Amino acid sequence: MNEAEMKVARLRADDVIYKYLPEEAGYPSTVISAINYSVKAGGKRIRPIFMYETFRMFGGEGEVIEPFMAAIEMIHNYSLVHDDLEAMDNDEFRRGRKTTHVIYGEGMAVLAGDGLLNMAFETALKAFDVKGANKNQVIRALKYLSEKSGLYGMLGGQACDVDAEQKKKEIDLQELMYIHENKTGALIQAAMVIGAILAGASDEETDKLSQVALLVGTAFQIEDDILDVEGDEKLIGKRVGSDVKNNKTTYVTIKGIPEAKKDAKEMSDQAIRIFDEIGKENGFLRELIISMIGRTN
Amino acid sequence: MNEAEMKVARLRADDVIYKYLPEEAGYPSTVISAINYSVKAGGKRIRPIFMYETFRMFGGEGEVIEPFMAAIEMIHNYSLVHDDLEAMDNDEFRRGRKTTHVIYGEGMAVLAGDGLLNMAFETALKAFDVKGANKNQVIRALKYLSEKSGLYGMLGGQACDVDAEQKKKEIDLQELMYIHENKTGALIQAAMVIGAILAGASDEETDKLSQVALLVGTAFQIEDDILDVEGDEKLIGKRVGSDVKNNKTTYVTIKGIPEAKKDAKEMSDQAIRIFDEIGKENGFLRELIISMIGRTN
Repeated sequence: MNEAEMKVARLRADDVIYKYLPEEAGYPSTVISAINYSVKAGGKRIRPIFMYETFRMFGGEGEVIEPFMAAIEMIHNYSLVHDDLEAMDNDEFRRGRKTTHVIYGEGMAVLAGDGLLNMAFETALKAFDVKGANKNQVIRALKYLSEKSGLYGMLGGQACDVDAEQKKKEIDLQELMYIHENKTGALIQAAMVIGAILAGASDEETDKLSQVALLVGTAFQIEDDILDVEGDEKLIGKRVGSDVKNNKTTYVTIKGIPEAKKDAKEMSDQAIRIFDEIGKENGFLRELIISMIGRTN
Repeated sequence: MNEAEMKVARLRADDVIYKYLPEEAGYPSTVISAINYSVKAGGKRIRPIFMYETFRMFGGEGEVIEPFMAAIEMIHNYSLVHDDLEAMDNDEFRRGRKTTHVIYGEGMAVLAGDGLLNMAFETALKAFDVKGANKNQVIRALKYLSEKSGLYGMLGGQACDVDAEQKKKEIDLQELMYIHENKTGALIQAAMVIGAILAGASDEETDKLSQVALLVGTAFQIEDDILDVEGDEKLIGKRVGSDVKNNKTTYVTIKGIPEAKKDAKEMSDQAIRIFDEIGKENGFLRELIISMIGRTN
């Protein structure tokens, strides 16, 4: 992975996202600060980068992609703010900074997350105003976004995860895969497929991308389970062993480390195979996919 | 107010809303139950009724209004689920039933609210699929909905309210009006203006409706402040005097009961005056506006 190229991509994503954040002036000041605090905490901006690079790969041009890049990062961020709540994971730190609820209080963090989710759709709808925007493509992209972030996408995966933890329920591989595919995979799918839709890709191409994204998201999550056992705390930026401590069912507890690594590798290879079948060129995106799911090798 | 007519309107709204609720089958089961529990708790369905009646007043026909009727009730319901959280008002009962977080736990209630908000947009987007839908009108309606529910609408009002309570801050009349106009007024505006947009009303007409709705929402909220002091617990369905107990600044604590009543009456009269200026006939809607802001007279 070319670090300099990655940095350029991240800064480009930051620029776009920041453009759509609320101005800190007038009412409702506290929740605006909380929203900006949470989004400006940084992060890899993986989803908007995936979206942009897929858009470019299919020859997409112009600014119609930008509201969607900001929107998907807002959705990702709202999910982090709510996941970190006392009522959920009760995490006090993220990316080396105090989490939103620690700074602004639990109630205001709930509202900041709500505000981000609402703003994501408000922002994505601005794509209709971009000169030359294809209305039907924007409508398809909006629908895809709302599906993949909702009950039968990210939120559904997260809800099953929370449910299993609250009930201290043993989950089987089928349910774990459902959680991984939705909690992580769905938003990566949204990123890549929306990039493709807005560039005018064919249904066959978006189908393939959706498979690639699901494999990437799932493999990424399995690697996360592996890193929880054998990662370097400094490198991954959070405490190692927290899944074990919380008695959490993970891909590793079900299949063991060697099998988990083998499966992640297979998914990664399959993702690249399908990606290459599409027959479009984006070396950076290809590298990005490989690097995302090769973190433990 | 004709109670029988009101009941018909409410049942019609219920029918529409229920059509868009998630089926209780398969993943993610618990959050789906929580969502359906909260929406099926009942309620007056004031917002979808206002929307439908305004749509009809401008000669609107067909089903394009239905996804928006369901969406606005989902947004209203998500705000109730989150308002009731321990982290917010910590209310254990609503409409005579235990609140969502009491039954499903705080974390699951956060997710149920998130799911409802996301589903609201997912549902409203289905208006594009209705046969004969005017795409440009649907786009305008979607934008209006997302603005009025968000940071510069309902959520902004709610955030200022929570902020003032958390900081035990004295608020002045200007901030109180901001809270009332947004926390309550904005979603009534969304209801009426979206009904009008989807029926092809002119900009002048939607401007007037937006004023009517703001007056109705604000007067309604002032009456709520009055009822908190002198209402009948059985009739209003919640504890009287909770604002006083919580030392909360309300329209009544700032202006006193007689002045508050006078102002609410004036807003109500003005709302009806502007409504009549539009020059369209809907006796039921007119009655509804009068009844909503005449509860203490």
